[in-house]
Amino acid sequence: MTGRDAPRVPGFQFTGVAGGLKKGGALDVGLVAASEAVSCAAVYTRNRIVAAPVVYCREVLRGRARAIVVNSGNANCCTGEQGMRDARRMAEITAERLGCAPDEVLVCSTGVIGAPLTMERLEAGIPTAVAALRPDGLGDFAEAIRTTDTRRKVRAVTRDGITVAGASKGAGMIHPNMATMLAFVVCDAALEPEAADALWRRVCARTFNAITVDGATSTNDTAILMASGAAGPVDPEVLEPLLEEVSRELALDIIRDAEGGTKTVAVTVTGARDEAEARLAAETIALSPLVKTAIHGEDPNWGRIIAAAGRCGVELVPEALRLWIGDTLLYAGGEWLGLEAEAAAHVTMRTPEYGLRLDLASGGAAHTSFTCDFSPGYVRINADYRS
Amino acid sequence: MTGRDAPRVPGFQFTGVAGGLKKGGALDVGLVAASEAVSCAAVYTRNRIVAAPVVYCREVLRGRARAIVVNSGNANCCTGEQGMRDARRMAEITAERLGCAPDEVLVCSTGVIGAPLTMERLEAGIPTAVAALRPDGLGDFAEAIRTTDTRRKVRAVTRDGITVAGASKGAGMIHPNMATMLAFVVCDAALEPEAADALWRRVCARTFNAITVDGATSTNDTAILMASGAAGPVDPEVLEPLLEEVSRELALDIIRDAEGGTKTVAVTVTGARDEAEARLAAETIALSPLVKTAIHGEDPNWGRIIAAAGRCGVELVPEALRLWIGDTLLYAGGEWLGLEAEAAAHVTMRTPEYGLRLDLASGGAAHTSFTCDFSPGYVRINADYRS
Repeated sequence: MTGRDAPRVPGFQFTGVAGGLKKGGALDVGLVAASEAVSCAAVYTRNRIVAAPVVYCREVLRGRARAIVVNSGNANCCTGEQGMRDARRMAEITAERLGCAPDEVLVCSTGVIGAPLTMERLEAGIPTAVAALRPDGLGDFAEAIRTTDTRRKVRAVTRDGITVAGASKGAGMIHPNMATMLAFVVCDAALEPEAADALWRRVCARTFNAITVDGATSTNDTAILMASGAAGPVDPEVLEPLLEEVSRELALDIIRDAEGGTKTVAVTVTGARDEAEARLAAETIALSPLVKTAIHGEDPNWGRIIAAAGRCGVELVPEALRLWIGDTLLYAGGEWLGLEAEAAAHVTMRTPEYGLRLDLASGGAAHTSFTCDFSPGYVRINADYRS
Repeated sequence: MTGRDAPRVPGFQFTGVAGGLKKGGALDVGLVAASEAVSCAAVYTRNRIVAAPVVYCREVLRGRARAIVVNSGNANCCTGEQGMRDARRMAEITAERLGCAPDEVLVCSTGVIGAPLTMERLEAGIPTAVAALRPDGLGDFAEAIRTTDTRRKVRAVTRDGITVAGASKGAGMIHPNMATMLAFVVCDAALEPEAADALWRRVCARTFNAITVDGATSTNDTAILMASGAAGPVDPEVLEPLLEEVSRELALDIIRDAEGGTKTVAVTVTGARDEAEARLAAETIALSPLVKTAIHGEDPNWGRIIAAAGRCGVELVPEALRLWIGDTLLYAGGEWLGLEAEAAAHVTMRTPEYGLRLDLASGGAAHTSFTCDFSPGYVRINADYRS
């Protein structure tokens, strides 16, 4: 993914270097930099306990940014006033070397919480990163933002003269110590800041904000879009599907890498009265431990799925519901459709990635949530994390 | 618990008999009967998918009832019109033998869903139960309503001349096939139907509706109170704590018997602006898989607890929060209180039952949710249930 095969996005350089925050010389300082300040939009965690870098980004981002500096190994969270000073200092060091204003630099951190950043290492590491920026550095950047990820996550697509590429990190949104899903997507389309913001919110709602492992949002979650404009203006109708494709794959890469997870399942609710109800029903099913353990057991347990919908707060008529696993209709008219359907659904559930769909038959809205299974491994990883 | 030691409640008889719904001659038909129609209140599942007996009870109960007939082994759920006819027929058989009107008999079912009741067995089993009614039969009744419960659940208390006794079933509200928490409490106090209803709703909110294993409500959940009046009128202020004591222990017995659970934890949120916010914060913490796995790992992971509160939707000031595990203050002023506090909290977490408390410092309302840990055993039981 580095060197010749690495995705390049005109107007951007990337890098990842070893700053000494992680042990053993692993890459832990990542940097994305545009040639100048470009349109930029960000979506943050909705948790009310937020880390210093999130507070900082919310303060400074006003539609344009030059660079994003990211460290792994420490989340700079629950670190008080010192944490805010450290986040600002990370931006300053980067800005000094890039020759821009500090508030043109966004900052993200991921790793353990409650401990202060070792700033003396970043004072050296960030300048090293700036010096190492190069057009084909996205793979190293993706490597540098890893924590418990078992692999780096990079995706890119070029179509209709536009290139979109990005990297994400997160092992199912639920790093044991709550640290962080991060995602960074860049494109060479020209986009006004307001348009970028609206577009990015829509895309995130269907991708990074549609994945769920256990309902836990973290203190550091951040997804950032930058648009260099090197490819000139583009039709938003062309750009949006590209951004969604890259973002969806980066989001699914997180699910695919979920702690203890062995299945990736798209839970689609159709026929809802509005999008909020579709989302509520889909998320309730996608989060249900009973559904997630059934997914792990490859058990077409339709009762658990409709019971999850039944408790989500959306008005529904049990007799009108229809449930498919893969292409198999399993439940309709208030009743189970028999052993043959169940056997067919079981075949689908033995595959690593599939979809299930519940039609509420009460309107035209739909939403898809992406989830994984709940395995004994998940419990083991999260119970034993600090013992 | 049967015979001499069994709790007796003046005005009531109980029994449990083998009706052939379960294999191997296990008790599976339970009956509670008052000497005449008495004040009765019920609280049902809030799931929108409900089983036939719940639909039936909601239809017929108007403040008074003579008896409750319960079968285990089959939940009579997702059984269509036949299920409704079967529920009504269970009441009719009981009423014929007791010599009362059918709509004075409440019906509950618990067990597998989707299969019709074997009514020919109940046609014989229910009359056997009526014939076997006796004042000291509460233990057999508790035995007859068991499904995956590892033990029968019976509680009683006599104080100030009033006796309250009851039985419950449920292995953590989350029987693998969603079947059912059931609870039955009787007392000899005299109580008007309206007063019984208001009292029972308050008590259930703090007991049966305050326990949570995985957020799954079932299609059959029902909690019923009957008051014979044999002890004459009582001060509600005297009766309520007795009802709450018996109900809380019956509810905690369900948590203590939770599938794969090894810990029972009271999650108390204090200092909330109103009770709804206190409940929302306490339930979010009590349901968080990350918190529940930390409880299993005996890990004083304060970060997961405050992050759960942070995402629950209640406005809060991170710096104002205070968190205790047992008597140990672990987090305050936005920061962790150090290794010594963590070690003390760990000692508490090694015990099988303890409390944790989060103070939001924004008001005077409080709520306690009761939860258990999440173990690899939970996943195994629920993933392997039908495979």
